[in-house]
Amino acid sequence: MVSSSSSRPVSRPVRYELLTLGDELLLGLTANGHLTFIGAQLGRRGVMLQRNVTITDEADAIERQFRESWAAADVIITTGGLGPTCDDRTREVLATVLGQKLVFDPATEKAIVERFVQFGRTPTANNLKQAYRFERGEVIPNANGTAPGLWVEQGGKVLCMLPGPPNELQPMFTEQVIPRLAARGLLLEREAYVQIRSAGVGESLLETKLQPIFDRHGDALSIAFCAHQGQVDCRLSSPSGKLSHAEIESVAAECARLLGEDFLCYGHDSMAKVCADLLRAQEKKLAVAETATGGLLANAFTAVGGACKFFAGGVVCCSNDAKMQLLDVPECLLLQHGAVSAEGAVAMATGAAETLGADYALAVTGFAGAGAAEGAGGNPVGTMYIALHAPHGVWSKKLSYPGPRGTVKLRAVNAALDWLRRELYRAQTGQALPERRSGVMQ
Amino acid sequence: MVSSSSSRPVSRPVRYELLTLGDELLLGLTANGHLTFIGAQLGRRGVMLQRNVTITDEADAIERQFRESWAAADVIITTGGLGPTCDDRTREVLATVLGQKLVFDPATEKAIVERFVQFGRTPTANNLKQAYRFERGEVIPNANGTAPGLWVEQGGKVLCMLPGPPNELQPMFTEQVIPRLAARGLLLEREAYVQIRSAGVGESLLETKLQPIFDRHGDALSIAFCAHQGQVDCRLSSPSGKLSHAEIESVAAECARLLGEDFLCYGHDSMAKVCADLLRAQEKKLAVAETATGGLLANAFTAVGGACKFFAGGVVCCSNDAKMQLLDVPECLLLQHGAVSAEGAVAMATGAAETLGADYALAVTGFAGAGAAEGAGGNPVGTMYIALHAPHGVWSKKLSYPGPRGTVKLRAVNAALDWLRRELYRAQTGQALPERRSGVMQ
Repeated sequence: MVSSSSSRPVSRPVRYELLTLGDELLLGLTANGHLTFIGAQLGRRGVMLQRNVTITDEADAIERQFRESWAAADVIITTGGLGPTCDDRTREVLATVLGQKLVFDPATEKAIVERFVQFGRTPTANNLKQAYRFERGEVIPNANGTAPGLWVEQGGKVLCMLPGPPNELQPMFTEQVIPRLAARGLLLEREAYVQIRSAGVGESLLETKLQPIFDRHGDALSIAFCAHQGQVDCRLSSPSGKLSHAEIESVAAECARLLGEDFLCYGHDSMAKVCADLLRAQEKKLAVAETATGGLLANAFTAVGGACKFFAGGVVCCSNDAKMQLLDVPECLLLQHGAVSAEGAVAMATGAAETLGADYALAVTGFAGAGAAEGAGGNPVGTMYIALHAPHGVWSKKLSYPGPRGTVKLRAVNAALDWLRRELYRAQTGQALPERRSGVMQ
Repeated sequence: MVSSSSSRPVSRPVRYELLTLGDELLLGLTANGHLTFIGAQLGRRGVMLQRNVTITDEADAIERQFRESWAAADVIITTGGLGPTCDDRTREVLATVLGQKLVFDPATEKAIVERFVQFGRTPTANNLKQAYRFERGEVIPNANGTAPGLWVEQGGKVLCMLPGPPNELQPMFTEQVIPRLAARGLLLEREAYVQIRSAGVGESLLETKLQPIFDRHGDALSIAFCAHQGQVDCRLSSPSGKLSHAEIESVAAECARLLGEDFLCYGHDSMAKVCADLLRAQEKKLAVAETATGGLLANAFTAVGGACKFFAGGVVCCSNDAKMQLLDVPECLLLQHGAVSAEGAVAMATGAAETLGADYALAVTGFAGAGAAEGAGGNPVGTMYIALHAPHGVWSKKLSYPGPRGTVKLRAVNAALDWLRRELYRAQTGQALPERRSGVMQ
């Protein structure tokens, strides 16, 4: 149960549930990004959501689920159903279950009207239903939209209702909900687990490699794996409390040493972030050139803060003309070897490095999936060539991935990132490949 | 209840639930793409998932939830928990609830071993636990991984268990699960709703505009809205059956006419797909240049099948040097106006069109969010300039978006796409802006 006077972590785990509302989620029309965002925000503060339930916009379904969840959980966060349109019914249904009235909140009405005025518009009548709050509850202001959030504490439990649009929900959650939960002692100060990330090792092989370390700790240690297209994460925790956080960290360090170059990082950094840190430490610049991955490789790097410091830029080519014009790839090479070839990838990587004045360059070319131009040069769909240009040479590798187009693109991006990471890691530790080769490895 | 002999739709709605298993989902470490994928696959066949529950890997939690869901639903699909590692317990727990034994399946063992041999590896002991199936159930072969799916029909209900990796699950679902469900009369032949997509109109204004049309149909028509960063979808259906599918389509056509240029499409096409169709119809080519959106604009177009036919290519610039070298942007322009300026965006768009030999070009430059280089030229974070180069002129617009970096990037991409779409639409209908202006609109 929630103790609103305590500022320390409660002794028994607080049960958090997330209710995400909306037919559009169940129809697959919108990804459930709220689970990802709120789950991560809580996870990094020592709390694991115990359940996420996504239900339809039907009032009966909302009522049935909320009754069940409210009985089971200590903290319930809901998302969606606070909008202005006729299918937004959550506020009314939850008020009924909690035995509360909804009351009109003039301050909220004022904020809604002001927001419309700011954008030179007039609120429509349906907007004003967003100005209702629970009679015994608070309003969580929304700086980026018209639907405010709602906060209720009742019977030792917390209900927190947030609007669906992510650009509204996310700042409300970090700036207003997290501090409220922390003030009530409902969050911890650090993650509930220690995560190590690995690359280039399958999930089952990773477990087999690490098992001798795990075995020494028996059931004191809880282990979970999560595979993401060429990267496998391993989370270590001790739900029983038999191992301290420092002891878990020491186990993680032992795993990292055993993994050697396959160890990516502790925590949550992306592969691009790890590469970015290595590039910055070595004061090197990177460029990319891509066809089938269509901008995702460039985006992986530009998603890292301060990308301008290490990322010179990228080129997305959809034709031989573009490769020739932007990357100086010789036409004769494309005619001789084909656009999807090891030689083509090498020429793209070198062209990107030279055009953009970068020390390292990655290139990806290939057939990502159904709908791609198929079969040129006898390459089946899923065939990709990646190339790495480094100060001491340039190499190409052939990859072959099964699966849908989106997966193939992601795996190719991750394979390219991992190759760069290993090369930068070796350069940093003085173990760069000694050969100054220039050519093609298949 | 499921009637396995019927090949026609059952008379009362079949209740589908999806159980997605895995701590990594609840900790926000992996997006719940299974809900998006399976929800859309079923939605397009007339079925709306009634609930998606995501729970932890704890055996107790799995058992409790499965008992409840099995009592309530007709068809349960589970994802995850079939892997080789110690935290994969779903198979065992569900067998207990169903009162079935797990039996070793030599054919599955053979498939697992062969898959390892194919990749030059040896299965570890933990891999072989994937060779167990329910004693009264079938195996759903997995062409892209070692964990097979499992299929059980019991007590007039269906349980379908699928492995977690999306590149394994997705082809299994479309190629094996959908045909099995269809053969049992558990799917319809078309969507349960008619969707119209709009752009450039807020959710509440859209409802207000369309309300007079909706009012004529009273409660025979069910309406739902879904907003996605500059685009709002509206789904029309008639759960009571009072309106036929043809009547709903006729209402949708009326809405589309009323919306005029704000009408994007029927169904599910992306804004980039709509642009692509217009470009192909007009035999025009497009190029893009971007800074803050980092490759996402290029990726929106390359995600459309056959992109090479209309997409010349893209350039991702992270420095003035890259803009000068790849796009021939004059240095004096960048010095005079700054990198993030209307003039800079115009020069990038024109440079992209000229370098890549395209008829149209889009450029996006700006400060996407915290961590971006801030404040140059007094532009706050969230300020973006987009430019459109067309055969008859070039224009630039200033945008200002609040919110987190990912949202700002997405909104800028959508704003650029929508601008291109309107321009192409006007060109097609002969209503292109008559002025041959070249300059800056703010």
